[in-house]
Amino acid sequence: MAASLSHIPSFFSPTTNPSSTNRIRTLFYFKPSITQPHKSFAILCSRRPDYIPHHISDPNYVRIFDTTLRDGEQSPGATMTTKEKLDIARQLAKLGVDIIEAGFPASSEADLEAVKLIAKEVGNVGAEEGGHIPVICGLARCNKNDIDKSWEAVKHAKFPRIHTFIATSEIHMQYKLKMSKEQVIEKARSMVAYARSLGCNDVEFSPEDAGRSEREFLYEILGEVIKAGATTLNIPDTVGYNWPREFGQLIADIKANTPGIENVIISTHCQNDLGLSTANTLEGAYSGARQLEVTINGIGERAGNASLEEVVMTLKCKGELLGGLYTGINTRHIVMASKMVEEYSGLMVQPHKAIVGANAFAHESGIHQDGMLKNRNTYEIMSPEDIGLYRSNESGLTLGKLSGRHALKSKLFELGYDIDGKELNDLFWRFKSVAEMKKVITDDDLVALVSDEVFQPQIVWKFGDVQVTCGTLGLSTATVKLIDSEGKEHIACSTGTGPVDAAYKAVDLIVKTPVKLLEYSMSAVTAGIDAIASTRVVINEENNQTTTHLTGGKNARSYSGTGASMDIVISSVRAYVGALNKMLGLKMQSK
Amino acid sequence: MAASLSHIPSFFSPTTNPSSTNRIRTLFYFKPSITQPHKSFAILCSRRPDYIPHHISDPNYVRIFDTTLRDGEQSPGATMTTKEKLDIARQLAKLGVDIIEAGFPASSEADLEAVKLIAKEVGNVGAEEGGHIPVICGLARCNKNDIDKSWEAVKHAKFPRIHTFIATSEIHMQYKLKMSKEQVIEKARSMVAYARSLGCNDVEFSPEDAGRSEREFLYEILGEVIKAGATTLNIPDTVGYNWPREFGQLIADIKANTPGIENVIISTHCQNDLGLSTANTLEGAYSGARQLEVTINGIGERAGNASLEEVVMTLKCKGELLGGLYTGINTRHIVMASKMVEEYSGLMVQPHKAIVGANAFAHESGIHQDGMLKNRNTYEIMSPEDIGLYRSNESGLTLGKLSGRHALKSKLFELGYDIDGKELNDLFWRFKSVAEMKKVITDDDLVALVSDEVFQPQIVWKFGDVQVTCGTLGLSTATVKLIDSEGKEHIACSTGTGPVDAAYKAVDLIVKTPVKLLEYSMSAVTAGIDAIASTRVVINEENNQTTTHLTGGKNARSYSGTGASMDIVISSVRAYVGALNKMLGLKMQSK
Repeated sequence: MAASLSHIPSFFSPTTNPSSTNRIRTLFYFKPSITQPHKSFAILCSRRPDYIPHHISDPNYVRIFDTTLRDGEQSPGATMTTKEKLDIARQLAKLGVDIIEAGFPASSEADLEAVKLIAKEVGNVGAEEGGHIPVICGLARCNKNDIDKSWEAVKHAKFPRIHTFIATSEIHMQYKLKMSKEQVIEKARSMVAYARSLGCNDVEFSPEDAGRSEREFLYEILGEVIKAGATTLNIPDTVGYNWPREFGQLIADIKANTPGIENVIISTHCQNDLGLSTANTLEGAYSGARQLEVTINGIGERAGNASLEEVVMTLKCKGELLGGLYTGINTRHIVMASKMVEEYSGLMVQPHKAIVGANAFAHESGIHQDGMLKNRNTYEIMSPEDIGLYRSNESGLTLGKLSGRHALKSKLFELGYDIDGKELNDLFWRFKSVAEMKKVITDDDLVALVSDEVFQPQIVWKFGDVQVTCGTLGLSTATVKLIDSEGKEHIACSTGTGPVDAAYKAVDLIVKTPVKLLEYSMSAVTAGIDAIASTRVVINEENNQTTTHLTGGKNARSYSGTGASMDIVISSVRAYVGALNKMLGLKMQSK
Repeated sequence: MAASLSHIPSFFSPTTNPSSTNRIRTLFYFKPSITQPHKSFAILCSRRPDYIPHHISDPNYVRIFDTTLRDGEQSPGATMTTKEKLDIARQLAKLGVDIIEAGFPASSEADLEAVKLIAKEVGNVGAEEGGHIPVICGLARCNKNDIDKSWEAVKHAKFPRIHTFIATSEIHMQYKLKMSKEQVIEKARSMVAYARSLGCNDVEFSPEDAGRSEREFLYEILGEVIKAGATTLNIPDTVGYNWPREFGQLIADIKANTPGIENVIISTHCQNDLGLSTANTLEGAYSGARQLEVTINGIGERAGNASLEEVVMTLKCKGELLGGLYTGINTRHIVMASKMVEEYSGLMVQPHKAIVGANAFAHESGIHQDGMLKNRNTYEIMSPEDIGLYRSNESGLTLGKLSGRHALKSKLFELGYDIDGKELNDLFWRFKSVAEMKKVITDDDLVALVSDEVFQPQIVWKFGDVQVTCGTLGLSTATVKLIDSEGKEHIACSTGTGPVDAAYKAVDLIVKTPVKLLEYSMSAVTAGIDAIASTRVVINEENNQTTTHLTGGKNARSYSGTGASMDIVISSVRAYVGALNKMLGLKMQSK
């Protein structure tokens, strides 16, 4: 219990900031606490028990298993490139998650390569600095091919894990698997044993749709896979059909009735179809689970999963009430992780999303000091700094058009980006052109430029120029110039129903790959009429590229692209070219 | 218990729709079940117990109290016009909510008028058809002025209610109220008695920040207000700091220890700061609360409130497990209510939001039939039709450029809009101009046009024309024509950093009211490159208009506007002019 005392909420600490109370809707910026990374890591690590697959030395420590890159990436339109996945995996390691589920290697060659790269790059570093090394996990259905591919990908990590699953509910066994109970048990048992036989001493097993499975059957199959060598048993409420008392009871029953359960870790995986995933996850922990499967921003198929930030911050604020439970998460990296996942997955976060929504720490504009702001704790249960959110007027360094390369590099480092060489140079020229037009460059502006300039897929087509005429009085006409990988310029013009339609049609005339525009959205990065516009598009190819879905079916993948500019037509074309590059790049990779 | 049997989830009903399984990301459209409105109302009403403020004849019936128009409208940027509030109140009545909290009449003259109008228009109709008439409630702090204003507004309803509140937690009493416990009790007691003395027999009392208040003090103050005549006791977790077991225990304790509690209704009001509001609300009901305070889409200050759709659908799916609890909500109007509130509040819903998010019923694109779709229930726990969501290929009526006025009117009626006269005529010409450019007009396209054309504030400035030239090769230049209320044309041109910046500057040159652009966003309404773009902006005036906040401080209000067009520059200008009209209109109204 002593270990968890440091988790008492910073609830009554005086954090009032009187200077910000008069502003119209206080703005925040996010800044990872990178001032003393090694020190904070050291503190963290002294509290995190050493990793042993089937056992945690401190009974109050709860492992956080992040599946943003597997379950989250499965969401419509959320396809990510290998580089994007690697960036997110690095951020998850910084955040201190215990296990990263990096993908489903059997689904496609590209996914296998991505998991392998993460295993190598993220699953090994940190050791020399005494830092935290996460477990790298790959998903596999209960068959030898999936398990082989998963092992091929994760074995490069210091702590590799194979996660295999099979459905155990009546409805899934009957309609999807067409297998009897005995067949399902035999399959699960033999495949867990097979995974162990490859040399993997860390095997997780999930009875899919456990929330709707027959209890006695669950105890039986779980007991069998424990005998076969499973070290973590994950209990998914696959369709999000449980309510907290029910899910807590399920975990308690499994803990009480499964033979051998005391020798393994129980895990939760709660979908959010009724909006109860966070509460279900916490009830699972309260009832004995010591691994919680979550995603950043709660993304995932349908209504998504339990969100890492809600689960972790509740444990941080209320851990004492849950019997002293605590995690190893460095919560100050939450905002950065949230922004990165929003950017790469294309799944935006609603303003009233708990913890990471834009309004989560904002109060209606201009409330006078004489009211609530005498003590910020009257309405705030945690401080924004706890999750890495800083009030923008507390920022030291402000950039303008006279700022040089070095100031830009420092500021970016403060924002968590370590950018050098050509990337820094390219970014600097973009920064200068914006600074010419805008007095103050905010942190959000910079982040938009970074995502437009640095976080782009491999270039197949490079954006050159665009010129547009449009309005109620005439036909919209656009001329576009793109540059191919050999440096050759291509120019085309087209009319359209609006400027973006015209420009996209001109791009299509050059690129000549039939695609379908699935989504298009745009938002201003900051307040003010001279804001940078950030555009996001999602496309797919008319002749679909597919990957294998968990259910055994095929997915048509879709690709998102982002672009930023002060001109919405330019940002729209940049986003479209970005999405095309992502699609064409992954296509070349999987050949 | 018999009454609730009809609430067994439609879980195993065969709703497979094989024809839709091959499509790229199945699209839905929403269609309120208006085919037999009177019949469905009749069924509904036979089950809803007669309204008596302090008592419900069926112990399993749970009242739904919607505070979208009060707590929801308090969110940054969510300011609504009187017309928008009335539209939402009508939709809430259709949905069958028991109590509508229509506003906080003491906050501004405009709010008082809006609540009064809703009391007259929505708080009385329906009786002659045997339909449902909701209670209309107005919020008031514990002072005579607030209570007088609240009564002045709600007394026109058939079932009026005054809701008064005062904070009871140490931190709030000490820092915000600067009052002793005795003073707080005396204030609460006397103000509840005052409300009753006005002739209001339905008085709700809330001890603000109950979740952090001392138990014994809560029992005492609640006992006193019951003696003074309160009929509903609402227990708010104001800062969203409770977790489900804790909040359930709070309700159970209050039920067990408050003198006289058996003669009144206990209510919950859970904020969502930790993402637990839905679970907390359900635990409250399980522990004895029979009124649940919620908002559509879960909007509200900071991370918002428990969302109506999550709470209601969980009770519908799992009511048996919660002891047979049920509500009077006609869930088929949920999607329509969600879209309307998203539109009017400007608070968008994330794709992975439970129940009403765009992905909630969507599976990753193109999954083959041989997988899960043999039985849709393998992954769906409720059918989309339960909430009024229809697969678009099940739609009968499709509109194209040859469709006439009558077909348009019928289709709109199917979508829940009853539009006639000049509005229909204006809409028809907009429809025709889109149909000229687009082969198929989808339901989403129509809804975008309706919100652009029909749901607009009173016109101060009318959009005329815009012409723009922009691109990487030249300076962005825009020319705008607006028409004032006397029909006079005004034309201005301006350059800018992009086409929207240039056009907005040209508008500013004409309108001459200094405003600040706070937010700007845009999305394509449907997939495809020729989609209609819907733009939303939020502005405020540099010399702020203010209203009184609950906390006693002043709010600077902000105003949203929307515009739709196939040309993003046009839709941007329409949205900006709409927001300006909303601001200028409310300004004239409050003079």
